[in-house]
Amino acid sequence: MALAMLLPAAIDLRDNNDDWLVFVRSSAATAAFCSMVLMATQGQHIRFTPRLGFLLTTSIWLTAAFLGSVPLYFSHLPISYATAFFEAISGVTSTGATALTQLDEMQRGILLWRSLLCWIGGIGFIGLALLMLPSLRVGGLALFHMENSDKSEKVLPRMNQIALGIVVAYGTMTTACIIAYFAVGMDMFDAINHGLTTVATAGFSTHDNSLGFYAGNRPLLVISTIFMALSALPFIFYIKAFTPRGFSSLIDPQVKLFFAIVISFSFALAIVLRVGQDIPFGDALVSASFHFVSVITTTGYATEDYSLWGPPALGIFFLASFLGGCAGSTSGGIKMNRLIVLFSLTRANLARLIMPHAVIKMHYGDSEITGDIAQAVLLYLFLYIASLVIGAVLLASVGLDFVTAFTGALTALSNVGPGLGETIGPVGNYSTVRDSALWILSFLMLAGRLELVTVFILFTKAFWVR
Amino acid sequence: MALAMLLPAAIDLRDNNDDWLVFVRSSAATAAFCSMVLMATQGQHIRFTPRLGFLLTTSIWLTAAFLGSVPLYFSHLPISYATAFFEAISGVTSTGATALTQLDEMQRGILLWRSLLCWIGGIGFIGLALLMLPSLRVGGLALFHMENSDKSEKVLPRMNQIALGIVVAYGTMTTACIIAYFAVGMDMFDAINHGLTTVATAGFSTHDNSLGFYAGNRPLLVISTIFMALSALPFIFYIKAFTPRGFSSLIDPQVKLFFAIVISFSFALAIVLRVGQDIPFGDALVSASFHFVSVITTTGYATEDYSLWGPPALGIFFLASFLGGCAGSTSGGIKMNRLIVLFSLTRANLARLIMPHAVIKMHYGDSEITGDIAQAVLLYLFLYIASLVIGAVLLASVGLDFVTAFTGALTALSNVGPGLGETIGPVGNYSTVRDSALWILSFLMLAGRLELVTVFILFTKAFWVR
Repeated sequence: MALAMLLPAAIDLRDNNDDWLVFVRSSAATAAFCSMVLMATQGQHIRFTPRLGFLLTTSIWLTAAFLGSVPLYFSHLPISYATAFFEAISGVTSTGATALTQLDEMQRGILLWRSLLCWIGGIGFIGLALLMLPSLRVGGLALFHMENSDKSEKVLPRMNQIALGIVVAYGTMTTACIIAYFAVGMDMFDAINHGLTTVATAGFSTHDNSLGFYAGNRPLLVISTIFMALSALPFIFYIKAFTPRGFSSLIDPQVKLFFAIVISFSFALAIVLRVGQDIPFGDALVSASFHFVSVITTTGYATEDYSLWGPPALGIFFLASFLGGCAGSTSGGIKMNRLIVLFSLTRANLARLIMPHAVIKMHYGDSEITGDIAQAVLLYLFLYIASLVIGAVLLASVGLDFVTAFTGALTALSNVGPGLGETIGPVGNYSTVRDSALWILSFLMLAGRLELVTVFILFTKAFWVR
Repeated sequence: MALAMLLPAAIDLRDNNDDWLVFVRSSAATAAFCSMVLMATQGQHIRFTPRLGFLLTTSIWLTAAFLGSVPLYFSHLPISYATAFFEAISGVTSTGATALTQLDEMQRGILLWRSLLCWIGGIGFIGLALLMLPSLRVGGLALFHMENSDKSEKVLPRMNQIALGIVVAYGTMTTACIIAYFAVGMDMFDAINHGLTTVATAGFSTHDNSLGFYAGNRPLLVISTIFMALSALPFIFYIKAFTPRGFSSLIDPQVKLFFAIVISFSFALAIVLRVGQDIPFGDALVSASFHFVSVITTTGYATEDYSLWGPPALGIFFLASFLGGCAGSTSGGIKMNRLIVLFSLTRANLARLIMPHAVIKMHYGDSEITGDIAQAVLLYLFLYIASLVIGAVLLASVGLDFVTAFTGALTALSNVGPGLGETIGPVGNYSTVRDSALWILSFLMLAGRLELVTVFILFTKAFWVR
């Protein structure tokens, strides 16, 4: 992060903007802080326990959000600390909900910093999902436990290899996206920013009306749709291409489900648009698939106010906000793998009621869904719903109207970005939302990003007593 | 039901209303139909299987709704069949959502019939919850399995005894409620109708503005609050008082939780009202507790539009619509027993992540929560959420606005009655909702009432193949 802060510093210096100093100072402070942590913990032999894993994960994201908020708060922007923190945590959780306005006139350093936060958060989350969460047995990710497919004892070199694979794959994908955006007509600065936030499925833009700035550019919307969808697939696919030893083949049912949902709902939406708005079917399909993919991958770009497409479309976008992309990507939400487990579980449990003595096994692709995984997924579902309802109630209790409170909690928890209603809808933003609500939303984004369990476990008594 | 239809017939005859003949004919048709079913199935030795149990339960409720709709449809009311069916199923599921207007001028036969449907549905559901669902292992009700507390093999006489206990307890409670209403100023007809729908926690009224007709009558609101709360407690408590052999004592944690929630949220709401509306705290507390109890017990009475009390109040009512009363009562929703199981499960599962090798037992009062019960409760939760979200999407797709679609699905599924928004809010009704939406809501009410599993199992392949 200290290194990353030097990039906006450089661009602000070039633009003759005083804020370059803020970024340099923040960078120095970050480097100093991290060196101190490094020195304080070096040399100690630390035994890795689940407790440590949970504490570390939440601490890293909170620290990143805090460090990310520093240059925003001390810049020339006239914002409260709540707004700066909200913006930073929205970045590092790859949510992309913004509380800033007048982006088109904003200094480029700030804009680049927002995009970089998303990108760093995205790569961090893929690392978390592939390297940390499975061994913490969070959210049913044990299905993707690497060690399953490799019996060797060389866990550490293997982890390094995976980490390297993530960096290379994520970097390559980002570069490809930036080049593609540039090729279809974005200027270089916009291409870099949108490339960073597309691959992170985050959704920050450099324009107040998001990709609406490029609304007429159909190829650009198609490119964006493709890269959002690619970024919502399990990154392990891409890593395989960059690692010498292949992983045992894991044909993943969640990819099939993801594309089935994307294709069917995009067509449904296109028909709704064609009928309701009387535009050519080609345009309708481009716009429908762009916006649907934007919501289901939890990116959150928009070129227009899709909440005006009528109640049926609204229903589909509402549903998409729950779903999310595939596990092992940067997208948020309930995710495809858990949906599949939930459906198998439901079928098996219902069948068991009719045939009490039958042995019914549940499968995810080739792997068996064990009782542990089933419970982990169901626990996630309960925490998700409880957070959603209680989050909405808390947001309402600080004065947000019903639609804003409910869809705000939903969109924060799923790390999507835009909600519904006039304030935080697709063409709105969080700039008029009061600070107390921003703090609640910040917490929901953090909890949602870290798969809920990781954060909520810190609030249990069992975590803190021996 | 055939007998019950003679009551509205009698009152319409006395009022010189031609519809008395409709009720008599419906009664004759009902009696003929049921006799035919009786004759067709008599003498056969039928083995009771879970399959039969599920099929029977759903069939009984659907048949009751159909039979209940007949006199409504053939009466003088100018309504579609969808409206008649909606009204009838809203009755037999003890929901109390009405699609009829001008209730104050309506013939008394129809009004009484609506109330009787609620009452019959209520007693039916208590029977279902105590006698049928536990042995079908639906929704975690096995905790309340009677046989657990009695090792004797006399199951059938015992079931008869329980059935008798239900009738006596439910009848006594209803009579007491009617007398109390009459004593505080309702006329006899209103007292009977509201007595029937209070004990069933259904919420049909004989006035367009529900208990708003008696808004100034504070003792009446208190009486209503008390009887709604009493009706949301496990009926087994009352049955015990009427059966010679006591059941082994079951001090039920859900009663404690229910009162803790009712008392704390009523006070919170009263404070919101006191601050926001500037009315005396006494009045605020009466109104707050009346409306909160009305929603959490899934009754649905209102004296005013509580959705105007501001966002914090709205949040609390929204939350209450999920919760519901205690298992073994006429109330709907997720219910207290399942909430307790969900919380224990969450705590245990989180603790297990930190201490993977610890044996952590979960308890509900004195009983252990087994893996089976845990899975049943979690399955219920998933079906509840999936029905809610998909129901809302379907309602939106036939043209309802977001708030109406979402809170309509929620209130139908929890069998509450009123939702939020201008159409179906506390002072609104379902008379302007289109037929397609009424059918969707009817299905949700049925599924919600029969604890979801009972209905959804009919849609699985495993149910129909051998």
